[in-house]
Amino acid sequence: MSKDKLTIGTLLFPDYDLLDVNGTLRMLGALENVNILMISQSGDKIKSNCQVGNYIDYNFDNCPELDVLFVPGGIGTRKEVNNPILLEFIKSQIPKVKYVLVVCTGGGLVAKTGLLDGKRATSNKIAWEWVTSQGSNVCWIKKARWVVDGKFYTSAGVSAGMDMALGFISDVYGREVADNIALRTEYDWHDNPDWDPFSDKILEKK
Amino acid sequence: MSKDKLTIGTLLFPDYDLLDVNGTLRMLGALENVNILMISQSGDKIKSNCQVGNYIDYNFDNCPELDVLFVPGGIGTRKEVNNPILLEFIKSQIPKVKYVLVVCTGGGLVAKTGLLDGKRATSNKIAWEWVTSQGSNVCWIKKARWVVDGKFYTSAGVSAGMDMALGFISDVYGREVADNIALRTEYDWHDNPDWDPFSDKILEKK
Repeated sequence: MSKDKLTIGTLLFPDYDLLDVNGTLRMLGALENVNILMISQSGDKIKSNCQVGNYIDYNFDNCPELDVLFVPGGIGTRKEVNNPILLEFIKSQIPKVKYVLVVCTGGGLVAKTGLLDGKRATSNKIAWEWVTSQGSNVCWIKKARWVVDGKFYTSAGVSAGMDMALGFISDVYGREVADNIALRTEYDWHDNPDWDPFSDKILEKK
Repeated sequence: MSKDKLTIGTLLFPDYDLLDVNGTLRMLGALENVNILMISQSGDKIKSNCQVGNYIDYNFDNCPELDVLFVPGGIGTRKEVNNPILLEFIKSQIPKVKYVLVVCTGGGLVAKTGLLDGKRATSNKIAWEWVTSQGSNVCWIKKARWVVDGKFYTSAGVSAGMDMALGFISDVYGREVADNIALRTEYDWHDNPDWDPFSDKILEKK
């Protein structure tokens, strides 16, 4: 079990997915020894894809040192993938952090930096073509709830962030800690990273 | 399918549960025809149980007319159940709204108003004794993911809010709409309101 306090930086942008962010953070936030920060380019108020939003703590200029970079997805990624300042922020953080957690179409942003090249990763199945086109040298895994490769944890769409977060917690803090958080949130954790009925439902239909 | 635009008012208080709120709102917020408001007693910044928080739109005095009152849970309910101003806000809204959505220990707050008396309801299993002691005349259902009685939708703990929200959407907007939201969030919807393994795991152990 990790004894160090982890500072987790969540990257927010307009039209981020509300559950990508808060589902994942609900699991991580149940840990005793974490510091969760919300970061956006300007630090100004932004909204998720569901009208409501989360408070921002830092902007790209005053963001403190992070141990974990968390990149969620959401429809806003379609615009941010052309935002060189945001891509540069991700690119500059990745070599410095211990872990990179990526949910859903956040994978498109991380892939676009080139730093996922040669790594195994997964993403949202509905936006599969868009995400995978952001990094043609990434080894994209079609059928997966989440994938771990080195410091990178990447998950399938939206609700998969919760399963991946519990997987991350199990890897770093131990299985018992993850199971206890799942129990206390009455969450039916899909603890098998290869579980992915959505891959068949969505991608096989196309 | 309902054609009217629904204004959904989310009641926030210090130490609300992050997933109770944002999991439920992610499902409701996928509907095209809803207006989601965040309301707290003062309207000032508050935090969830996971360090981060949601922006507040209104306070109890300037809150507009609601169609749906949404009461989440969280450890903060233990304090709020002794807050007469908050209880009075809930009590005054219930007769006016079309639906009352209650997640997790939010059931303790609603029960305390007396307006759940004689109704069937469920809640979080870990905090079962505390919640049920707030309303001894409520017909508490031990084994349930969510329960519907008249205008009241009440759910089990934390993640159950997502299942209940999809159940509500199915009832009001049609099954196809709910299924589509579950698919697009890659969410494994437990669509049977009687599904509740946590009741056995937690309550039967005690």
